[in-house]
Amino acid sequence: MAEIEGARRSGPTLRDVARHAQVSVATASRALTSDYPVAEPTRLKVLRAVEELNYVVTTRAPKRTPATSLIAMVVSDVISPLRSLVATGMAEAAGDYGRLSSVYITGGDTRREDEVFARLEEQDDVEAVIVVGGVEVTDEYEQRMAAHAHALHARGSQLVLCGRPPLPAGVPALVVEYDNRGGAYAATSHLLSMGHRQILTLTGPERSTTTIGRVHGYQQALADFGVDVDPALVIASSADRSGAYQSCQRVLGEKLQFTAIFAHNDVMASGALAALKEQGLSVPDDISLVGYDNIPVAQELSPPLTTVYMPHEEMGKAAVRLAVERPAPGSGRERQLLGTHIVIRTSVKPFRHLGSGARPV
Amino acid sequence: MAEIEGARRSGPTLRDVARHAQVSVATASRALTSDYPVAEPTRLKVLRAVEELNYVVTTRAPKRTPATSLIAMVVSDVISPLRSLVATGMAEAAGDYGRLSSVYITGGDTRREDEVFARLEEQDDVEAVIVVGGVEVTDEYEQRMAAHAHALHARGSQLVLCGRPPLPAGVPALVVEYDNRGGAYAATSHLLSMGHRQILTLTGPERSTTTIGRVHGYQQALADFGVDVDPALVIASSADRSGAYQSCQRVLGEKLQFTAIFAHNDVMASGALAALKEQGLSVPDDISLVGYDNIPVAQELSPPLTTVYMPHEEMGKAAVRLAVERPAPGSGRERQLLGTHIVIRTSVKPFRHLGSGARPV
Repeated sequence: MAEIEGARRSGPTLRDVARHAQVSVATASRALTSDYPVAEPTRLKVLRAVEELNYVVTTRAPKRTPATSLIAMVVSDVISPLRSLVATGMAEAAGDYGRLSSVYITGGDTRREDEVFARLEEQDDVEAVIVVGGVEVTDEYEQRMAAHAHALHARGSQLVLCGRPPLPAGVPALVVEYDNRGGAYAATSHLLSMGHRQILTLTGPERSTTTIGRVHGYQQALADFGVDVDPALVIASSADRSGAYQSCQRVLGEKLQFTAIFAHNDVMASGALAALKEQGLSVPDDISLVGYDNIPVAQELSPPLTTVYMPHEEMGKAAVRLAVERPAPGSGRERQLLGTHIVIRTSVKPFRHLGSGARPV
Repeated sequence: MAEIEGARRSGPTLRDVARHAQVSVATASRALTSDYPVAEPTRLKVLRAVEELNYVVTTRAPKRTPATSLIAMVVSDVISPLRSLVATGMAEAAGDYGRLSSVYITGGDTRREDEVFARLEEQDDVEAVIVVGGVEVTDEYEQRMAAHAHALHARGSQLVLCGRPPLPAGVPALVVEYDNRGGAYAATSHLLSMGHRQILTLTGPERSTTTIGRVHGYQQALADFGVDVDPALVIASSADRSGAYQSCQRVLGEKLQFTAIFAHNDVMASGALAALKEQGLSVPDDISLVGYDNIPVAQELSPPLTTVYMPHEEMGKAAVRLAVERPAPGSGRERQLLGTHIVIRTSVKPFRHLGSGARPV
């Protein structure tokens, strides 16, 4: 794999070439490598700019190991325990590899995220940029990320997607994902195997890739147990405590029938628990409850929460490992899927079908 | 306040001057500003180096507002909710001021911290470096931090200490602190005013500035209520759940007499609560419990925890505000102390003295 490097500081940069050719930096990069296709007229425009500016194109080995190279992580927040754990694993692994690491908090603001990328794309010593967390995948998102991936690649750097799905083929990015579907399947089939059939699921934002994966796993488990999916039992809210609290309060008011709740994260489970208790309902005597993430709060709830363990720190470490080792495109190692497992505590009780009726045991 | 700036890139830097004069960058900086005293022979050595190297000394306004300037935060971890909240406040305020921000996680490793500083001290666009969290103040610590403060100052940047005490006079650093003493005083006097006299306190590492401040507040409250301080009731452990759990388990085994516990953070309170419950003791019927921090877990405990509110996000914001506004030395605004207040939930019950004996109500 050839990468490009302009003669820095002393001469024109790839950015100058791109500007001169009136194309994006990503396109200029692609035009000068053989890795990715680009329309012939565009390639000629870029080559003409290279010539006119006396831009020096050099190729070099893809791995770079300057002692002070930086691994950057871009994340909406470090409040959610999962993101702070990913950041922790990332920092630890970066240290083990002798890299510096830093975390850029964007507050979920796309404009700020682009500013952060612009800064990182300008620096020479950024070995990789790791973007963390589920997203709503839109055309606009894919175009933005593809541009960043190409711009980083053009500088010998690398985009790593962490906890979100791959970009379209041809975009140079590595991927570490959780098995959202598998985790939700495990949580739901645990409730099903305990006899529950009316399982409410409290999800985060509907179009987030995390939600989509988990709803998929929930539906698959129901299907495998021969239970019809009732769309009324899939309730989306904001992925926080108060969102889940309000949603749970609302469905209790609507007299929706269910015997168990699968909340898409532990913080949402704590909100649901508070709403259930307020209505005089006991967990697990009246309603069984399963969370997701296994954050510290899960063991402090009353009752302690059955949940899905997520290897958050390992995720951060895996992202750094990928960034440093740089598996070649097509090696099959550019995409990793990390497994999860269920952690059984005491928030679930069997539901027994007794004769014609059904009641919680 | 005059600051110094070499003609960057095109000419010698302050670093070159320092090397030539065989002094540290910090000393070279001090010799060239009038802010801080330096021995006359040293000053002459530096001035000679300036002359021999044709170093350009310019003064400029202390405020710098390049659109892309960076505010960096250096922190041991972002797992603890308080540090992740400080980081959040910092990122938000930095964004509001149009600054980029990034967080460097050191894992509490001094060597890594120094590497991070070295990197930040080399960059031209770092407006401030905010170091977060209580520390063990040693001579070695003070010397390291003073060197970083001077090196940053020499680049027109600024050290901000956040949640830790000021450095010795003459070191150019801004300070935002919590009122650890006031918070611990409030927690302890709440228990005292409820009739408790035998109050165990579970502290973090003994030599941490946070612990020292909080023990001080605890002792002051006891003294003000005319209660002797019993050193056996001050128990140090690691500042986490398992450390507090083990310490609490141990003191219960030793039959130490106490009717209330003041834990120095909420996570430690949750560990103490688990140990008490295991011994069949009820909170608050048998033992009252107060935490510190008011992290989300506090409201999830059974019973919900009475604790001390800490303005963590405000702390991160205040650090950025100081960094951007740069109050002049001697203005009295270079050091800010943020207040705390107690949050009453249901983990404390009054203790009544009845005749000759005493029993929990």
